[in-house]
Amino acid sequence: MSLIVQKFGGTSVKDAGRINHVAQIVTDTYKKGNNVVVVVSAQGDTTDDLIAKAAEINSHPSKREMDVLLSAGEQISMSLLAMAIEQLGCPVKSLTGWQAGFETDANHGMARVRTIHKERLENELAKRNIVIVAGFQGLNRYDDITTLGRGGSDTSAVALAAALHADLCQIFTDVDGVYTADPRIVPGARKLAEITYDEMLELASLGAQVLHNRSVEMAKKYNVNMEVVSSLEDKPGTKIKEVTTVEKLLIKGVARDNDVARISVTEVPDEPGYAFRIFSALAAKKINVDIILQSIGRAGTKDISFTVSRDHKEEAVQLLEGMKDTLGCKDVLCEDNISKVSIVGAGIATNPGAAARMFEALADAHVNIQMISTSEIKISVLINREDSDKALRAIHDEFIPG
Amino acid sequence: MSLIVQKFGGTSVKDAGRINHVAQIVTDTYKKGNNVVVVVSAQGDTTDDLIAKAAEINSHPSKREMDVLLSAGEQISMSLLAMAIEQLGCPVKSLTGWQAGFETDANHGMARVRTIHKERLENELAKRNIVIVAGFQGLNRYDDITTLGRGGSDTSAVALAAALHADLCQIFTDVDGVYTADPRIVPGARKLAEITYDEMLELASLGAQVLHNRSVEMAKKYNVNMEVVSSLEDKPGTKIKEVTTVEKLLIKGVARDNDVARISVTEVPDEPGYAFRIFSALAAKKINVDIILQSIGRAGTKDISFTVSRDHKEEAVQLLEGMKDTLGCKDVLCEDNISKVSIVGAGIATNPGAAARMFEALADAHVNIQMISTSEIKISVLINREDSDKALRAIHDEFIPG
Repeated sequence: MSLIVQKFGGTSVKDAGRINHVAQIVTDTYKKGNNVVVVVSAQGDTTDDLIAKAAEINSHPSKREMDVLLSAGEQISMSLLAMAIEQLGCPVKSLTGWQAGFETDANHGMARVRTIHKERLENELAKRNIVIVAGFQGLNRYDDITTLGRGGSDTSAVALAAALHADLCQIFTDVDGVYTADPRIVPGARKLAEITYDEMLELASLGAQVLHNRSVEMAKKYNVNMEVVSSLEDKPGTKIKEVTTVEKLLIKGVARDNDVARISVTEVPDEPGYAFRIFSALAAKKINVDIILQSIGRAGTKDISFTVSRDHKEEAVQLLEGMKDTLGCKDVLCEDNISKVSIVGAGIATNPGAAARMFEALADAHVNIQMISTSEIKISVLINREDSDKALRAIHDEFIPG
Repeated sequence: MSLIVQKFGGTSVKDAGRINHVAQIVTDTYKKGNNVVVVVSAQGDTTDDLIAKAAEINSHPSKREMDVLLSAGEQISMSLLAMAIEQLGCPVKSLTGWQAGFETDANHGMARVRTIHKERLENELAKRNIVIVAGFQGLNRYDDITTLGRGGSDTSAVALAAALHADLCQIFTDVDGVYTADPRIVPGARKLAEITYDEMLELASLGAQVLHNRSVEMAKKYNVNMEVVSSLEDKPGTKIKEVTTVEKLLIKGVARDNDVARISVTEVPDEPGYAFRIFSALAAKKINVDIILQSIGRAGTKDISFTVSRDHKEEAVQLLEGMKDTLGCKDVLCEDNISKVSIVGAGIATNPGAAARMFEALADAHVNIQMISTSEIKISVLINREDSDKALRAIHDEFIPG
């Protein structure tokens, strides 16, 4: 008997029809003799609706009360799914985050799972109940409800799979797997049968939006077998594991991220310590910096540019404007009409020609590169937003066999 | 410093405007130096909406899952109210039923409060936090969420007031107190300044719909000072207590209950044991019987009639149809185009003329009486539904000085 964790997002349970369909998938898995733990998100737009209700009342509600409010969303979807499974004649229990034993830290709105107290879960599974667990939520040690932040249901699923030593953690989505690029932009994009945790991490953080990054980190850490699979069609998805064997592609995907702003601090004195001041100040405000580029010093000054997520751009600019005297710089400039386009693949590190091929493909497509960043398994370039579609296609054509 | 429990129903928190108004009432009470515990119901039609969602998926969902679903309703309203109170600058925490320590029996959908574990509540009050508690819900000893059934928020409020030895338990409603009759039907109806627990119990069970009966029973048992007060206007409500002193009315109110069906079992053998069989079978199915009338035996048979709530009429008829052989009866008839009209008042028992005056008033209004039932503090008659408005007015005019 295998133990399978299945996670369904908000779209997959958005109405009675979709819930009944999910119930069918779950009970089919159960009737094959598997133990099944299901993680659900709130229905469709419930979370947004609840946020709107709160905004009407208080523009800055406490994060504690937001967590109480939002966690009601999964409580609704999980009980409805349980009822649909009852209708199909299988034994089922729905459990809130705290009932399922999710203990988190006290960081409301962005809590991290500390541990899962498994007694209740194991008891229900021992009774051969299908267990539905509310994703995205837990309880801190003050007995207050916490949420894991957006996309947290993926993390809930992987954490459960790790704690219960599940044989498989299936993430059901409206896409049928991980593609080499967004098929809406790149017509030749191919579905991958397998991808490594590291590749998936780079793709996720680069805007591929299939899986939440924290869930993949956790899957890698605890070696959880994951699979991204369609909730609409019954066909193979993409497996995420430590080492892939099926495909020998140099790169696994081309990703685009529009959630990026470039900030430039111009004419900083070309002396030691200035970069440190900038980035330690940003770190103190918990502003994550991605690509960093420093111009070669000229006439005693240099320009320092970096990218942040668009959420943080105003805070970053304000912060640095306030430090102008300390930094002795001329201007703090911000540009957000840009995209980050990246290639991801475990083969990149051992294939020094990859970068050259990428840049050549972009040059042939007349796409200007503003900044470059590389890691073991990815190469990212910053380009004008309006060039990003053709850049994706050009790079994809270069690397992925048609 | 006093401790005041304030309960607000679904209509009182139905939208942002009403929630803000409630926050004002609560913080005004708090700023006078009182400790305040607030009990809220789900917003407006939330409970009905959730029931409709469930019905779309499963026509007979388990009561356990219904409780999980419905309890999300108060979780939403309590957090929104907390946010509104934060906006007014007062410290506040919202607590679900289980966080507030409500332990109930395992009777899903109709659970009874067993005990309230007060630690968390007392800690929050000691920090001078306003505490918002989700009404209507608790946790059984299997750590499953339970609900107290419709109107259960009143019971939650009284149970909290009893456990915390509150000085006052205020039930805020859209009416401004308890009236001698429904003012929409009886123009001369008067608001009562005070009413006894027993009188209130009779009025509530007779369909006055101001307070949930179980809450009044509990208030009587633990001697909780209750007050029914308007959530819309700042004016005195009706106090509910052991002994009233202000008004010396023979009767405190005239009530009507349309939720009643009369069932008649005709031509039952006029021998001992038949009534027992009928009513023990009904009791075994937990069907509550109210008024019972047995005809005088004639030609070796008798008719037995009784009333049940309309919810139970089909079940009762089915049950008795199935017992026809055992009962040796002719027919099982059901009539639900009827109303029960009652007068309530502690003075009735010591005033033998009350019944006669009531019947005379009905006769003068040409209202035919089908059945009669009396207790220490009430007299009820069963009449045709279409006569009930004029019956209410006739009785009210007779007993309540204009």
